Order: sequence, then C-alpha cells, then structure tokens
Amino acid sequence: MNQLTGACIIGQSGGPTSVINASAQGVIQTALREGCITRVLGAAHGIKGVLDDKLYDMGQEDMAELDLLQYTPSSALGSCRYKLADPDLDDTDYKRILEVFKKYNVRYFFYNGGNDSMDTCNKISKYMQKMGYECRVMGVPKTIDNDLNGTDHCPGFGSAAKYIATSCAEVWQDAHVYDTGTVTVIEIMGRHAGWLAGSSALASRIGCGPDLVYLPEVDFDMDEFIASVREIYERTGKCMVAVSEGIHYADGRFVSEAETSATDGFGHAQLGGLAAMLANEIKERIGAKVRGIELSLLQRCGSHLSSKTDLEEAFLAGKTAVEAAVAGQTDKMVAFECDRSNGYSCVPVLQPLDIVANIEKKVPRAWINDAGNGLTDAFIDFVLPLVQGEPDTPRENALPRFARLKKVLTTDM
Amino acid sequence: MNQLTGACIIGQSGGPTSVINASAQGVIQTALREGCITRVLGAAHGIKGVLDDKLYDMGQEDMAELDLLQYTPSSALGSCRYKLADPDLDDTDYKRILEVFKKYNVRYFFYNGGNDSMDTCNKISKYMQKMGYECRVMGVPKTIDNDLNGTDHCPGFGSAAKYIATSCAEVWQDAHVYDTGTVTVIEIMGRHAGWLAGSSALASRIGCGPDLVYLPEVDFDMDEFIASVREIYERTGKCMVAVSEGIHYADGRFVSEAETSATDGFGHAQLGGLAAMLANEIKERIGAKVRGIELSLLQRCGSHLSSKTDLEEAFLAGKTAVEAAVAGQTDKMVAFECDRSNGYSCVPVLQPLDIVANIEKKVPRAWINDAGNGLTDAFIDFVLPLVQGEPDTPRENALPRFARLKKVLTTDM
Repeated sequence: MNQLTGACIIGQSGGPTSVINASAQGVIQTALREGCITRVLGAAHGIKGVLDDKLYDMGQEDMAELDLLQYTPSSALGSCRYKLADPDLDDTDYKRILEVFKKYNVRYFFYNGGNDSMDTCNKISKYMQKMGYECRVMGVPKTIDNDLNGTDHCPGFGSAAKYIATSCAEVWQDAHVYDTGTVTVIEIMGRHAGWLAGSSALASRIGCGPDLVYLPEVDFDMDEFIASVREIYERTGKCMVAVSEGIHYADGRFVSEAETSATDGFGHAQLGGLAAMLANEIKERIGAKVRGIELSLLQRCGSHLSSKTDLEEAFLAGKTAVEAAVAGQTDKMVAFECDRSNGYSCVPVLQPLDIVANIEKKVPRAWINDAGNGLTDAFIDFVLPLVQGEPDTPRENALPRFARLKKVLTTDM
Repeated sequence: MNQLTGACIIGQSGGPTSVINASAQGVIQTALREGCITRVLGAAHGIKGVLDDKLYDMGQEDMAELDLLQYTPSSALGSCRYKLADPDLDDTDYKRILEVFKKYNVRYFFYNGGNDSMDTCNKISKYMQKMGYECRVMGVPKTIDNDLNGTDHCPGFGSAAKYIATSCAEVWQDAHVYDTGTVTVIEIMGRHAGWLAGSSALASRIGCGPDLVYLPEVDFDMDEFIASVREIYERTGKCMVAVSEGIHYADGRFVSEAETSATDGFGHAQLGGLAAMLANEIKERIGAKVRGIELSLLQRCGSHLSSKTDLEEAFLAGKTAVEAAVAGQTDKMVAFECDRSNGYSCVPVLQPLDIVANIEKKVPRAWINDAGNGLTDAFIDFVLPLVQGEPDTPRENALPRFARLKKVLTTDM
C-alpha cells in the first residue's frame, strides 16, 4: 500500500437532501482520525469554494456540532451548480484547482453529489492523473432522484421516499374526509426518473395512497389520463393522483412546460404548477372539485422524517470513501450492493467514476404496470427497505436542533 | 346531580386537524365506560349523519383500533360543512334531528369542530331546550386556525404550528444552500386570523425562520411589501417570507383574490397560488430568483409531527366533555385556561356555547411588530408551550399505522 500524506477537501454539490450532511459527517470525522490526512478542508459551495480558495478548516469545529450534521438537512458546507468545461477545450478551472490543491498539499478530494457532481469528480480525477499530480479522488453519492448508475440506490432517496409516502398517506386521510367528490393531484420531484413519484405507491400499500401514479418513464397522454381519473372518480367519488414533475408527451415536451408557456391576465408568465395545471384540466373536463399539491422543497429537506437506514448508509458512504482512499483507491465512487432475498443487507463497493458520470438510471419499465399509471410489487419491494427506521432526531424546544458550524476560513486563520 | 340515561352521539365537523381524532377518542372511550351512556354512536360526516340516520355503533370497534385514533389525522368519522338554518325561519332540520335523537333515545350530543360547528352545536342545544327534550349538548373544540373565542387556545393548533415551524426551518436550510440570491415565499393557512402564519416565527427563534411574516390582522400594502423584501434581499442575498393565505388590502380584498380573478392564456381561471403570485411579483419588480411554496393540506394533516402536548389536550377535551355532561352540564364548550407564568399548565374549563359561536379570535395587534411584518416575543411565548413533546407514533413498515375502524351502521345491525 502506498501511504499518501496530505490534506483533504470535501465538497458538496447539486440539490440538497435530508441526509447529504450525514455523508459529509462520515467523510469529515473519518478523515480527522486518519493519521495520513494532515488537514480536513471543507469547500464553501462545492467546487466554487476550491476555485475561490474559500475553504473551511474542519478541524476547528466542535465534535458535538459535527455529530449533529446527520440531522441537519441541506448542504452544510454550501452547494453549487457549477459545470466544469471540457478540459480539452478550456482548462482554466482545472489549472486553478491544481494550484489550490498544491497550495494546501491536497492529496485527497471527496465530492458529495449526484450525476453532474460525479461528472465534475471524474473530470478532476482524470486531469490530476494527466498532470501527474497524485491525488486520490472519490465520489460520495447523494441524490433524492435515485438516478445514479452503478449503485443499487443512492443516499438521500430513502428519506425523500419516506417523506413522500408519509405525506401522501396523510393527505389521503384529509382528502377523504367529506362525502363530496374531490380529485387531489400531488406533484413530486423527478425530471427524468420516476423513483420519487413511484414511492407514493408505498402509501397505497397501507390503503392510503394515490389511485394513479405517472412517471417520466412512460409517455403521458392527457386524454387517457382524464379517462382514468374520470373512471375512478365516478365510481368512488374520489381520486388521488401522484405525478412526477417530469412527465412528458410522446414528442418529449414536458407536460408542465407545454402549458405553462401561457401567461396570465397580467401578461406574467405562470409559475410552475404542474399539479395546479392538471387539477385545473380535471376541473374543466370532469367538473370535479380539485386540489393540486406540490411537495416542493419540503420533500428534499424534510429531515424530521429521515429514514434511519438512509441516514446510516449516507454516513457509511462518506466513511467508506475516506477509508478506501487512504487504502490507495482513487477515481471511484462509493456504491451500494444490496441483497433483499433474505431480509435486507447493504454493502459498500467501489465503482469507476467513468461508469457513473452522466448516466441516468430510470425505473425499469417492468416495475411499472401495463397501463403506465401504477407501480408493481417489484418496485415496492425495492423501495420498502430503504425507508425503514426512525432516527432519534435531537430537538430544542420541540424544534429541530441543527448543527451550528463555525466555518473558519483558512484564509482568515 | 341529575342522572340521565341514554345514548350519545359524537360528530366531527369542519376542516380536519392532526389531532381531532384524539378528541373523538377521548369522547368515545370515556362514553363507553360511563354506565348511564347506553350506546355510543358516531355520526357519519357530522350533523349530516344525524339527518340521514347514518350512525356508527362505536361499541363494535376494537379498543386497540380506537387507541390508534390519536395518531390518525383527519376526521375518522367523516366531516361536513353543513350550515343549519335559523330555526325560527326553517326548523325542518331540527325536527329531523329531534326525531333521530328520539329514535335512539339520544341524551348526550358531542360536537367536535371549530367556529361553525360550535354554532351548529349551540343551535341544536337551544332547540332541544325549547322543545323540552332533555339532551346534554357539549362542544369539543378543534381548529388549526386557533380562532375560537373563550379558550386560551384550541386543540389542533399546536400540531399545525409545529409542522409549520419545523417545515420553515427545514426549507430555510435548503433555501440558503447556494451562494446565489433567492427569495422564498411560504403560504400558510388562515383566512381571517394569523395564528398559523405567525407560528413560522418559532423557526426564526432558532435562526432558520422567515425574515418577514404577514398576517391578516394587518392590512397588506404591496409596495411596502416589495420594499421590505428588496431591502433584505439586497443586504443579504436571501429573503424568506411567510404569508397567511388571508392577507388583504386595506379595502378588504384578499390579495390572492385580487389577482387570481385573472385567467391564463387558455381562459382558465388561475388556481389558488398566493405564494406563486407574490413570488412572481417579486421576480418582476426585484429581479430575484424566486420560489413559492404552499404548505396546503400538509400542515393540517401532518400527524407525524404532532405536538404531544396538543395530542394530550385534544384527548382531554373529549374526555372532559363526556364527564361534564354526565355530571349534569349542558350547553357548553370545553375550553382551556392556561398559565405560562411558572412553566406551563393547562386546565379544562367550560364556556357557554353562546360566547363561543361565531366569534373569531385574532392575534392581538400588540403581538405583531410595529411594521406589521413580524411577531413579538409575547406571541412566541404564547405558542412555544403548545408545540412541545414528541408522541410515540406507531408505525408499520416505517409508515404511519392509522386506525382502521369497522364503522358498523346501526341501520345494518
């Protein structure tokens, strides 16, 4: 084994999740204990913090506050949506990253994010190799969307799935309280993959879920949609529908975009609102009382409903990344191999960054029913283990007690 | 004491809450134990169930399922929004109610609801007195809006307040993750009273709450609103705003109605969306990136975030109603007298239905800051005790385990 001594940088990127900070905690606390890692630096707002030399010295933080990271939603170090150029076309950013790496003798780089972040991670890894600068680069996965390739599932998904299923079950109770007819449309995140919207079907398992679920994996047809809603509404007086924000027509147009290009009476563009748009369509065509609900940011930051399984796996992903890098691994992402055949087990493995970056994993068509408006048992069996367990969330005055970091910049020390 | 023997009816009415079923449980389980109450009947969809003779025999239910009622959001017996006529103008409904009461020898009537329901309760009570039919009538309060007169606060409010404060704190974390500017607008229920929107300020106490809070108690001025948002946004790069759905201009027009009378490009009426509308206004006038979030039904059915204090008080309200009625009381609503001077204590008392019905209790102007865009410490001190405590919510497969009632109709027995 090749012992490599130097500082490490941990950065977070892309949309937040409820448990991304558990992964950061796994990286930071493990790195602080590794003798060969001389300094643990947190990048402010992901790769932008490296480019701007805005790095926090994580060794200055209280361990008790770092312990609270796992219960703190969103990205504690700050996030970004910064896309690195192709280094063959423009290597300005890469040169700067190398310069900052050299300044702090950074020999370990951990990047905590989703699809785009694994692409960033991969590009940096390849550039450092090309330049002959020895730096071990590891991707730590996160995304509520669960669309990362090369892993059974992704940290962040289980907690969002649990939030969605629980909220759908509760809304179902509310939506069935009157003896008058109503149709409820719930809009769930997911532009290209339907893992999250599909998770609403967990609530159907306990008799309180959507009657119909629409994912981006199946082309959307408005007439068929209206016919399905009408049939259930006329038979039962109620209908609850869950839709991915990314549902699209056969020609590829997003259903939301197709309609929200309209402007209102003031000439303003209409904001978002796929749920409201579909609810309105149902009202116009079926005459039902409707309600559109958008779970919005709540579903990705609702850490009070985290899955303990997800939380522990998110921490494990960060810890594994550091241990593997110290042991000599580089150019990999931590992934999970799971076995559901006899209970549930999850083992961290390493995947080459190449096979992860820029590929979106969709819900298999076989896990969606033939009509394209519901999920099969195979989907449920896949998701159910990931939402298990209640974390012992610390509270102050009954409100969540989030980590309070000092965030001491190295340039201020 | 006058011992009165006969059946009782419990009905639920108005919008659901997270804990209204805890009150129903308090009524049902206490009534089932009282010797003078010969039969416990649950009205399907409130007073409509009485009018239609659709009554469930609650003695047929499993006690273990009744125990789960407190963890089950929304109204388990079904609700209604049925307004009884003035009996001097039209006594048809009252005659029918008396007929059904006589059919089952109903001598106790418990009505679990908010403002309108206490009016229903009051009218029935006065009618039965006028007709010389001995029946003890008790109101059991519920409303997330906390606008019932004659009580310190109302069951249902504390849990909704906790949901709102927790969700705002989580969204705050998410909304501050990027180093780019954003304005977030969160729309909260409350047409005429701002107790719920005000509760978002609890999150500000832990540093993760809205910068600005607007309640219906203060006339809204769009230009002042934009100026306040602009000042905070330009100074900090972020701004988070909480608004009551019921904010209105000085002339009384709701801000939402004033704008949503507009139609979109298809000639459809725009649906709801005060948050989206204000976010759009901010985008147009300030040029900020914006996000509008509507907490919608989630805030009133989010029982996974119930306050244990609220849950216990809701049960106590139901139990007290039965015990007081058996002891000879009638024509009253259970209310709370609280003392916050040395810790928090809450004692149930009885208030005449007359003084409760049809009066809306608003947030005192002195509890709102001078600028009309934030809450004072007095408001926080009032709300904070009501959100305390985590109930031990039963789960199955990590999802909530709601009560499953048999709902055996008397007419089917």
